[in-house]
Amino acid sequence: MARIALDVMGGDHAPEAPVAAALLAVQELAPSHELQLVGREAVIREELSRQLVGASPMLREAVSTFAIIDAPEVIEMTDKPSVAIRGKPNSSMAVGLRLQADGQSDAFVSAGNTGAQMAASTFILRLHAGLSRPAIATVLPTARQPVVMLDAGANVDCAAAELVQFARLGHVFAKDILGRATPAVGLLSIGEEAEKGNAAVKEAHQALLGAGLHFIGNVEGRDIPMGACDRGPIDVVVCDGFTGNVLLKFYESVAPMMYGLLKQVGVTKEQFGMAMQSLDYAKYGGAPLLGVKGVSIICHGKSSPEAIKNGILAGLRAVESEMSRHVGEQLGA
Amino acid sequence: MARIALDVMGGDHAPEAPVAAALLAVQELAPSHELQLVGREAVIREELSRQLVGASPMLREAVSTFAIIDAPEVIEMTDKPSVAIRGKPNSSMAVGLRLQADGQSDAFVSAGNTGAQMAASTFILRLHAGLSRPAIATVLPTARQPVVMLDAGANVDCAAAELVQFARLGHVFAKDILGRATPAVGLLSIGEEAEKGNAAVKEAHQALLGAGLHFIGNVEGRDIPMGACDRGPIDVVVCDGFTGNVLLKFYESVAPMMYGLLKQVGVTKEQFGMAMQSLDYAKYGGAPLLGVKGVSIICHGKSSPEAIKNGILAGLRAVESEMSRHVGEQLGA
Repeated sequence: MARIALDVMGGDHAPEAPVAAALLAVQELAPSHELQLVGREAVIREELSRQLVGASPMLREAVSTFAIIDAPEVIEMTDKPSVAIRGKPNSSMAVGLRLQADGQSDAFVSAGNTGAQMAASTFILRLHAGLSRPAIATVLPTARQPVVMLDAGANVDCAAAELVQFARLGHVFAKDILGRATPAVGLLSIGEEAEKGNAAVKEAHQALLGAGLHFIGNVEGRDIPMGACDRGPIDVVVCDGFTGNVLLKFYESVAPMMYGLLKQVGVTKEQFGMAMQSLDYAKYGGAPLLGVKGVSIICHGKSSPEAIKNGILAGLRAVESEMSRHVGEQLGA
Repeated sequence: MARIALDVMGGDHAPEAPVAAALLAVQELAPSHELQLVGREAVIREELSRQLVGASPMLREAVSTFAIIDAPEVIEMTDKPSVAIRGKPNSSMAVGLRLQADGQSDAFVSAGNTGAQMAASTFILRLHAGLSRPAIATVLPTARQPVVMLDAGANVDCAAAELVQFARLGHVFAKDILGRATPAVGLLSIGEEAEKGNAAVKEAHQALLGAGLHFIGNVEGRDIPMGACDRGPIDVVVCDGFTGNVLLKFYESVAPMMYGLLKQVGVTKEQFGMAMQSLDYAKYGGAPLLGVKGVSIICHGKSSPEAIKNGILAGLRAVESEMSRHVGEQLGA
């Protein structure tokens, strides 16, 4: 049985969206797994009652399995990361993560302040040996299978050694979360030749050749939407967090732009939505913060209930596949 | 009268594509401006005759104004950049650029080896004072007006001072080539706050506040497809050449991927093509190499005749607007 803690106070649409996500998730999780709702108890109970008006007896019974854990403080989206550690020790983030550190929970899921979640996760769960900072892994939809790109924004100035760490973390993620038997790891660069790239990328390329991973060499920006390069499909794209974050946000913005153009030639919203189904970010749920000893799933602040539910399921997969243990083994290899 | 030298030997489809481009361009340029075809004279004459079979007397007369300039050596797409300077001093690139350095030509346009063109342009035309390397400016189509992004791949490891130079170069480009009266210059980063970004970006942000440009602060990946951020439209996106190159190639690859998805819901190739017209790279022609004393237009190796023709027209605009002089003034400011 996995115990998954959900931050009810985190996100642009809290507490409505997290509670709605819990009601969606519980139908897939109960009775095998337990959901732990963390936040201001009164707020949680009120929101639950509100959303349960007219609910089926079956849903009500599933909801009765929820553990409700009071956390009186709330981290705002505008709070600095350090607030999560020192300023508000009884926030839903700190309380939810401490449950895990204390062996009372197996995963933490939040759509709240990302910087605060990273800081609190690192401080409370601690990092696996050999890491200086955690990394954010993001699943990108492509024309083929989804690929995992990391780092997506946690580490903006990266040395070669950090890029190699991302490759190891991405390898474990692709195996455990995406189910790829032998993940093909590509290093994002500006040409496929080993000597192309900035200083950190060139050095990382050499190191990755002997890292014991299935390293397929450099991949380019054009290979990502295709999910493949000349040498075959890609499972993991390794990059620094600056490039990764710029690319991720760019990608998220391209579909709305395309729709604006297609609308003018008679493509309907329904047609477009159907075509883009496979690109729907909500499907892939949250992004695990990789490198911490445990499971911390970061959801977008704007997440819908569906997206947060998928974040909860991603947390479950991370727990069941023992991803964190595999990360430790991979980093120690 | 502007004299524009065209590299007939450069590009994946040379000499067909450059010669076809010259035939398209001459109809807009002659008799006010002169086209100089640079390459192996016999090859040029043969390709011209081939393409002129059945041509109108008017086109034949326009073509008779071409200057044909013999350059016996050819730079291959796989040659190292240094070959352009030392190895093949009589290549079409070296000859075409020397014409300009000698006052016999006003602009050089090539779809050949980009690294070689950068090296030869820098070596032969020289850089404006205050620059260590030239930058590649690329025009990106957006949901609104096109924006110029630089650097798009010439400089992979950039210090803050270089990012500030790119901002100055982009300002001149946006004014002279895109016709923006007061270009809005954005610095690509991972958040709009001044303290977001990698070390170089954070330092550049501070320097740009006092650079005498219309600096609108940080812009994010999501703002590029929209051509605007919260603070209004964007004309110039400043970034290091690694991020810029990754983003550019990613962008080029997104449309084909989207088409693959849309096809499945019944969107026709014609419909898609019509919608994407405003995104057509060929329309924006080549990318000027910014910072050299003169005009050197870099076209994609795969350029169609239409794209190279637009590169020629971009060269003409650069000459007529005195872009290079303005770059010198802006860098000296």
